[in-house]
Amino acid sequence: MKFDELQKQINFIIEIDKLKSVYRQTLLTDNTRYEGDAEHSWHLATMAFLLKDYSKDPNLDILKVIKMVLIHDVVEIDAGDTYCYDVVGYEDKREREEKAAERIFKILPEKQAEEILHLWEEFEERKTSEAKFAAALDRLQPVLNNYYTEGKSWIEHDIKVSQVIERNKHINDGAPLLWEYTLDLINDAVKKGYLKED
Amino acid sequence: MKFDELQKQINFIIEIDKLKSVYRQTLLTDNTRYEGDAEHSWHLATMAFLLKDYSKDPNLDILKVIKMVLIHDVVEIDAGDTYCYDVVGYEDKREREEKAAERIFKILPEKQAEEILHLWEEFEERKTSEAKFAAALDRLQPVLNNYYTEGKSWIEHDIKVSQVIERNKHINDGAPLLWEYTLDLINDAVKKGYLKED
Repeated sequence: MKFDELQKQINFIIEIDKLKSVYRQTLLTDNTRYEGDAEHSWHLATMAFLLKDYSKDPNLDILKVIKMVLIHDVVEIDAGDTYCYDVVGYEDKREREEKAAERIFKILPEKQAEEILHLWEEFEERKTSEAKFAAALDRLQPVLNNYYTEGKSWIEHDIKVSQVIERNKHINDGAPLLWEYTLDLINDAVKKGYLKED
Repeated sequence: MKFDELQKQINFIIEIDKLKSVYRQTLLTDNTRYEGDAEHSWHLATMAFLLKDYSKDPNLDILKVIKMVLIHDVVEIDAGDTYCYDVVGYEDKREREEKAAERIFKILPEKQAEEILHLWEEFEERKTSEAKFAAALDRLQPVLNNYYTEGKSWIEHDIKVSQVIERNKHINDGAPLLWEYTLDLINDAVKKGYLKED
């Protein structure tokens, strides 16, 4: 039928509307509420094309990076947001998310479902330049929001500076200068009392 | 200095966090609240690469379309969201938004500010294939959300079917099959009582 293929795509587009209602542990910079997954993904996609020249790889496929960050959190519709410093939650994160990816991406027409599933797996594996750069943005953005809300979320969760460095140091694999900048920001956060020393 | 250029980009990235707090008249499909501009832009960017084959132009620059939809509403940080059926609000919309574009985009380093400003102007003028396709998505998405919330926002604002057709018919300029699909949806919405006849 005429709209068979399109209807599957529309079904997916409607399904992922739910991502707007999955909330993270990051506050908006105006401190009014927690950030949703969809607007977080928008922020990363916009950062991607603005900051692409900081990628370690001068031949970065920026369209691929943008697609990756746009869909990287879709699995959280089923699996929920796992706070990045939650050690217990991370134990079965992969399993929960793989199950979610199976269900959600397969709403799409077969060929497109495969493409998006691979894109998500590539992001998760963090081996290619595109995945490393996407992951760097996914770490930098919450550090920025934490810094500009005077570390409110770090303080609430009793996060220490060593945890923030450990969690974010792979920014260096995708974008060395962004990691240098992030380290400066982290050090300044400690100095200002936004982030606790160990 | 080492981070001069980057700091301007970070300042812009922090500034546009405010877009998450600009709300539209469209409801989320789960009916819990109004949609924010940032998550709306995320939805369009994701739709862009999923639906790109429906563009009238087989040589569409999809990266440009995605950039466009990611930044198309940034001016609303200053200018606010003008409801698409608000005739009075539309009178000075252009002026308010141009002033906003001047202020916000110029936070970026000069070259990048020019690029983004041109991208926004191209979107607004709706002359190129990329702008037409981006505009088609920007119209289709709220129709979908209105349909899947049983027309709640249409009914609240007393919108008639002729207004919805008049407002959205330019979807046809960017993506004819998407317009055919939208028309079917609009007719079905009338049949189901989600949208009033004239």
